[in-house]
Amino acid sequence: MEDIPLGAFISITYRSHFVWINNKMKEIGLSAGQFFVLMVLSHDQGITQDTLAWRLLIDKGSIARAVRILEDKGFIRRITDESNRRAVLIYLTETGEQLIPKVLKIDQELEETTLSGFTEEERTHAKVLLHKIAQNSYEAAYKDGEKRKEFPLKKI
Amino acid sequence: MEDIPLGAFISITYRSHFVWINNKMKEIGLSAGQFFVLMVLSHDQGITQDTLAWRLLIDKGSIARAVRILEDKGFIRRITDESNRRAVLIYLTETGEQLIPKVLKIDQELEETTLSGFTEEERTHAKVLLHKIAQNSYEAAYKDGEKRKEFPLKKI
Repeated sequence: MEDIPLGAFISITYRSHFVWINNKMKEIGLSAGQFFVLMVLSHDQGITQDTLAWRLLIDKGSIARAVRILEDKGFIRRITDESNRRAVLIYLTETGEQLIPKVLKIDQELEETTLSGFTEEERTHAKVLLHKIAQNSYEAAYKDGEKRKEFPLKKI
Repeated sequence: MEDIPLGAFISITYRSHFVWINNKMKEIGLSAGQFFVLMVLSHDQGITQDTLAWRLLIDKGSIARAVRILEDKGFIRRITDESNRRAVLIYLTETGEQLIPKVLKIDQELEETTLSGFTEEERTHAKVLLHKIAQNSYEAAYKDGEKRKEFPLKKI
């Protein structure tokens, strides 16, 4: 096992999560792209698409597509920021708010599935180590770029 | 920290790795898509594009694009399998073989960066936990699908 690269574990996990989330989101007529946006909105509304792109490290084009689908389906609304008329802020509609418990349930089920068979101690340890891993990876990827802002998970 | 979803750590790590690998691969005129294919070929040659897609859980279209770029640049060659003329097997060329140490170095550097500040014990623990996490996630994602085969990382 020692010679399996760490990056391979991360990418197999990420891609499996994506497939799993996609299947679950289909049951509510949506897909994985919208899942990530809804997860952020469940914690924080009145943010721009740029903020969503930074929090999720997803390109702006994909964020724009996910936001458009959510707007077309009536789950979010976009409101021009009165203090900066070039900024458009995103809020959940009432229907969107009703969707959030289902999305959070999918997330919780994903976590249960991912940590299946772990002891309580291993769960805690896994989260601590993964937090460090995510932070190290983020800082390395964006260390010289203009994109570098505060580590996005501090805010989720 | 407890309330940050596990999936968020995984996706931030994966996307940061992708950005980081892309930057490093640019130095040798390639990109992250080709990195993953070269990593598999460094362990195992004479495999089909379908096998690559399964090992990496990447869609066949993306694999085909990565393979075409590597072939155009002279790093791999595709040879029809004499025992099954519909199968095309992928091998590294001599130039491709010379590239592998650079790719492995990028992978090793990624691992060093990702685990920066970890004690030896934490490194071992992180790999054991991530192996379990990857396997659980894979099994959940493909449990009912036709795609389900043996967990791909056993073979890397």
